[in-house]
Amino acid sequence: MTTATSTNPEADALFIAENAFLKELAQQIRAQDHYGVFRTWEDRLVLANFIVSKKRKREIPVNGDVDPATQLRILSFYRAIAASIEKETGKLCQVVLDISHEGFGWSLIWSGRLMVVCRTVRDAHRFGFESLEKLAADGEKLVENGIELIQRFPEVANL
Amino acid sequence: MTTATSTNPEADALFIAENAFLKELAQQIRAQDHYGVFRTWEDRLVLANFIVSKKRKREIPVNGDVDPATQLRILSFYRAIAASIEKETGKLCQVVLDISHEGFGWSLIWSGRLMVVCRTVRDAHRFGFESLEKLAADGEKLVENGIELIQRFPEVANL
Repeated sequence: MTTATSTNPEADALFIAENAFLKELAQQIRAQDHYGVFRTWEDRLVLANFIVSKKRKREIPVNGDVDPATQLRILSFYRAIAASIEKETGKLCQVVLDISHEGFGWSLIWSGRLMVVCRTVRDAHRFGFESLEKLAADGEKLVENGIELIQRFPEVANL
Repeated sequence: MTTATSTNPEADALFIAENAFLKELAQQIRAQDHYGVFRTWEDRLVLANFIVSKKRKREIPVNGDVDPATQLRILSFYRAIAASIEKETGKLCQVVLDISHEGFGWSLIWSGRLMVVCRTVRDAHRFGFESLEKLAADGEKLVENGIELIQRFPEVANL
């Protein structure tokens, strides 16, 4: 998959630099970069494959197994959410992604006995967001909901 | 894998007939029996592969992927636990098994936002119990703990 080109790379770079969730996400991707391919890349390029237009989504076939790179991207997204929740609450979070070869499944984040994120995954083959703003907004929403749940049920999260 | 022969088949059959968890487990296995292989088998024989002696465990190699039949057996075990908890509490339970090809991972059962069973899996290749009694005792313990958790945190299980 080629890296998408943005219409305004400077604005993108600025948006990422000021967004805690996107910075965390770039860090999660870099943590998997065992051969240092991304070492000299800007965060903007590291995150470029998370942006998939509606038109491009339609072109991605959903037959066959989910591409391992896409799976790792989905996992990185939820790991970034878990890491952000951990930083805010101090509670250790576990992540499990369970996706069938048909692209359906679960993404789960829990702490103690509290499920802080519990989402059904559909069309995993076509995972992606229309813009950096939408990617950040979706991540931040899940982080906020998770933190709220932990604050509401601390006893369950501590089990 | 050949089916283990019991030293006392009649006592085994009686034990299973009187044990709700083992009957549920046999039913879970039968639900996967798409070709009707087990249709005429007694529950005792359907459950025979769950019994693995210590000596036999040592003989099972842990290299390579976990045998699909073993994976299905582990999944059936946790599905039987989920079904037993459902019957007792009326709460819908979801099961996810996430095992790496090295035989490590998680088995998770949750209801709403409450994780009722959360177990790390090790040596999945060698999954099995020494006796029907131990199989039933392990399942029943997890069922009881799960029911207790739901009774303690009904609000979380209803989320």
